Amino acid sequence: MTPTPTQTHHRTKRLLLDTGLGMLLERGYNDLGIQALLAATELSKGSFYHHFKDKEEFALAVVDHYMENVHAGLDEALLDPSRPPLHRVRRFFEVTQQHYKAQGYMGCLLGGLGQELSGVSEVFRKRIAACIGEIAKRLGVCLEAARLEGALPRDADTKRMANLLVDCWEGAALRSRLQGNAAPLTAMLDFYFQSAATR
Amino acid sequence: MTPTPTQTHHRTKRLLLDTGLGMLLERGYNDLGIQALLAATELSKGSFYHHFKDKEEFALAVVDHYMENVHAGLDEALLDPSRPPLHRVRRFFEVTQQHYKAQGYMGCLLGGLGQELSGVSEVFRKRIAACIGEIAKRLGVCLEAARLEGALPRDADTKRMANLLVDCWEGAALRSRLQGNAAPLTAMLDFYFQSAATR
Repeated sequence: MTPTPTQTHHRTKRLLLDTGLGMLLERGYNDLGIQALLAATELSKGSFYHHFKDKEEFALAVVDHYMENVHAGLDEALLDPSRPPLHRVRRFFEVTQQHYKAQGYMGCLLGGLGQELSGVSEVFRKRIAACIGEIAKRLGVCLEAARLEGALPRDADTKRMANLLVDCWEGAALRSRLQGNAAPLTAMLDFYFQSAATR
Repeated sequence: MTPTPTQTHHRTKRLLLDTGLGMLLERGYNDLGIQALLAATELSKGSFYHHFKDKEEFALAVVDHYMENVHAGLDEALLDPSRPPLHRVRRFFEVTQQHYKAQGYMGCLLGGLGQELSGVSEVFRKRIAACIGEIAKRLGVCLEAARLEGALPRDADTKRMANLLVDCWEGAALRSRLQGNAAPLTAMLDFYFQSAATR
């Protein structure tokens, strides 16, 4: 069947976002040229500017697209009734680690753009900070459930623990990117979950 | 006294490295223009190219310059006989945190350039990975001394612990950069040192 104009429209946008995500993960923001994106997608300049005003708007849309995937991953891991809450939290990172592997250990888009742009762009700094804050908030809800069922110490500050977890993960993701392997991610998760449960 | 040509030569190079360090911390590599650097230093293009072949060579020299400061900080903290080894390790990060504060919480140059460039430049990827590895190695020696005096569990893998510490720090430094404050750094150090000592 021939796709309708609306379907083509959506497919074009999706192709730009998917391709842009891979390119932003690898090259960062300033090194990404619209021309290179068009060459990779075989789309015209007009197609790009039909969907996005400029590179900044495009990159922010890629961040939104990335966050849709992150939230889908959080839903799948954290709302899984077959595992206890603390296992669900770890599961989210284990699945994320599999995505990193599939992408060749490029790390986390939020960490990459956050490092590159937050010194010069308030727009990106605030957006990336908000994204990381959202992830920590969702993890914190699950850590709180773990605390309530006794898997964490009764006096654990689960909000603080969730922020800490995300921060340590981002650092391990950078090291994983530098080394091209999963070892820093696994080491960090092992340390965190062993420590968290016994404090 | 009028400086000699050799003194001027060194001062010029030093000025470029110091100014470049601040600009790379804030803007990253790809957003740094040589013209902007020349404008900030009031030096001529000829001065820059007298010292550096190109922007890559310059940025690598800035990394070396940054690492000289890091190693001086490691010397001062880790070789301080007035503190027990585990305190020396924490002291290094507390002093680093003061530097971050003085720079307006721009985070760590290694984390910034590592994120931005390691997907596209093997030269930077290897250099940054080596720098972080060196820091972890020196911290590991001090953690091993802490283990031998009983401040860490006898079976602690201090090499692994040192790598983990540096990784978690890098993540906390990113979050500190995003938030513009020290809270993530302090939270991470508190968690790490409480956990490390009691495992």
